Amino acid sequence: MSLNGTLLLNRSNISSLLNMKEYIDVVEQAFELHSKGNILKSGLLHFDSDEGEFHIKAGGLRLEKLYFCSKSNSGFFNNKIKYGLPNIQGLIILCDGEKGTPLALFDSIDITIKRTGAATAVAAKYLARSDSKTITICGCGTEGRIQLRALNEVMPLEKVFAIDSNPQNLQDFIRDMSDQLGISILPGTLKESVLQSDICVTCTPSKSYFLKNEYIPKGAFVAAVGADSPDKNELEPTVLSENKVVADILEQCISVGEIHHAISAGLMAAENVYGEIGEIIAGEKPGRISNDEIIVYDATGTALQDTAAAVAIYKKALNSNVGTWFKFPK
Amino acid sequence: MSLNGTLLLNRSNISSLLNMKEYIDVVEQAFELHSKGNILKSGLLHFDSDEGEFHIKAGGLRLEKLYFCSKSNSGFFNNKIKYGLPNIQGLIILCDGEKGTPLALFDSIDITIKRTGAATAVAAKYLARSDSKTITICGCGTEGRIQLRALNEVMPLEKVFAIDSNPQNLQDFIRDMSDQLGISILPGTLKESVLQSDICVTCTPSKSYFLKNEYIPKGAFVAAVGADSPDKNELEPTVLSENKVVADILEQCISVGEIHHAISAGLMAAENVYGEIGEIIAGEKPGRISNDEIIVYDATGTALQDTAAAVAIYKKALNSNVGTWFKFPK
Repeated sequence: MSLNGTLLLNRSNISSLLNMKEYIDVVEQAFELHSKGNILKSGLLHFDSDEGEFHIKAGGLRLEKLYFCSKSNSGFFNNKIKYGLPNIQGLIILCDGEKGTPLALFDSIDITIKRTGAATAVAAKYLARSDSKTITICGCGTEGRIQLRALNEVMPLEKVFAIDSNPQNLQDFIRDMSDQLGISILPGTLKESVLQSDICVTCTPSKSYFLKNEYIPKGAFVAAVGADSPDKNELEPTVLSENKVVADILEQCISVGEIHHAISAGLMAAENVYGEIGEIIAGEKPGRISNDEIIVYDATGTALQDTAAAVAIYKKALNSNVGTWFKFPK
Repeated sequence: MSLNGTLLLNRSNISSLLNMKEYIDVVEQAFELHSKGNILKSGLLHFDSDEGEFHIKAGGLRLEKLYFCSKSNSGFFNNKIKYGLPNIQGLIILCDGEKGTPLALFDSIDITIKRTGAATAVAAKYLARSDSKTITICGCGTEGRIQLRALNEVMPLEKVFAIDSNPQNLQDFIRDMSDQLGISILPGTLKESVLQSDICVTCTPSKSYFLKNEYIPKGAFVAAVGADSPDKNELEPTVLSENKVVADILEQCISVGEIHHAISAGLMAAENVYGEIGEIIAGEKPGRISNDEIIVYDATGTALQDTAAAVAIYKKALNSNVGTWFKFPK
């Protein structure tokens, strides 16, 4: 172990250490390292429990040195209503990849939410039209807010259509995000809003698709963020089979993403996926090549993003003396 | 989160809370629950790093309520020599299986070592002759000591042959374990010692087999404990293909245990494995049925054992006010 033990970082320690711009930068770098093979291959375990699920995402990243990161998250979507507990709970363990030592432990929530928004922003930089002004956000929960904040860092957004089946969520989102970002946010209706949008983000826990291919206008960028387990689904399978599709990590998208549903429906094969976002960042494949093409980004959430964020936060915490040391081996 | 947060338990907290007899009892119960399906299916991830490896074992156990447990361990076998660090380091996260809340965090080492010894003792109860007096321990490291202590709880041991390629390890083992257990411990030679033994335990990090089938006498019980990753190997493949073989979890043994090597060698198929230890504990299959048969137990180490031990330690820590509370979500 290092001299002081393992650094414990709670949610409020974490939330102030890395801003959205920094999340976007480290996530972009992580995807690029992935495409160049400078990683320990990401792995995924999924466990269905009685009223929820557990999943583990783990992998490594070769930055100035090798780091390994393992995240254990749970999703129990009745927790808030039934017990007043968070629906998503979890911890991240960051290890020295060259000696195995656990360097730090993080509450996982802030990192999970923000690295997910950051990945969409990175994808938009390469896959959306650079003049994208109008956006539809489907799902006005915590993740919807972060998606909008992250995209606002990289796109000249002027108009937002917000859609949520819960009127209170919708109202709160419009009020809070209008205040925060100073842009026009209106309640939307799915088909009409998407038809007018340059970007559409889906970030709901839906288990059956709602975004139809016919809603999506030429030149749009669609980010499918909600589906991160085999039973979640937001996009009509033809949205994938009939457009250019980019994966975060193809292997994950085939088993738990939107691509998995389109393949199951017999409409496409893994070979029909255009590429991974890392390949495009690294310049191995071009991103958007015309103002007309529709590009779909399938985001399943990766250990790459967790590791990149955890390392950046750990270094900042060390520099600014934030956190609590604990000696486990003792 | 529970009122106080997550309970942090360091190695010295843990080592005093559960004795070997208790480890054996909870591990036996866990295997039985596994055979009855009262679990969340165990999962395993393995990552090769530059000079070592990381692995994650996770799963759940339905005790008086459902628990989920995830262990992240690293093995860097030059750590001690190169950096003065432990070769094996890691953490266990124990969660409420019904709400997802992280209940406790444990240094993993003491639990890993002892639950491994406990599993061998459980297997010996059902698979070794009940009059087993003579034992050979191959590998006199920390795990070898625990294997002997655990087996001494369930068998009337009188004579131990100790074998290790490192003379200092061997000498320390003989001195320490003779003192602790008050039984005769002698340096052994592989073939001669095993031929005289009722039980033989292999618990080395060997990557090529040393225990040959011709060394093993009628009626013996062999516990293969060392192989827990695809490249580790202690038993000649015919030790498995020509004898009755019991797995801890068959699916794991096929991918990372000794069984995996015998299958790779084309000498047996998964169907030739007699059963899992849980099935025997639950009475679904008989264990030893004659004093002559040789029975081999392939131990890969399971999340079942980690979960069972973690839950028992957590409950004892709560009762005796041991540990440090930390609020991650804050």
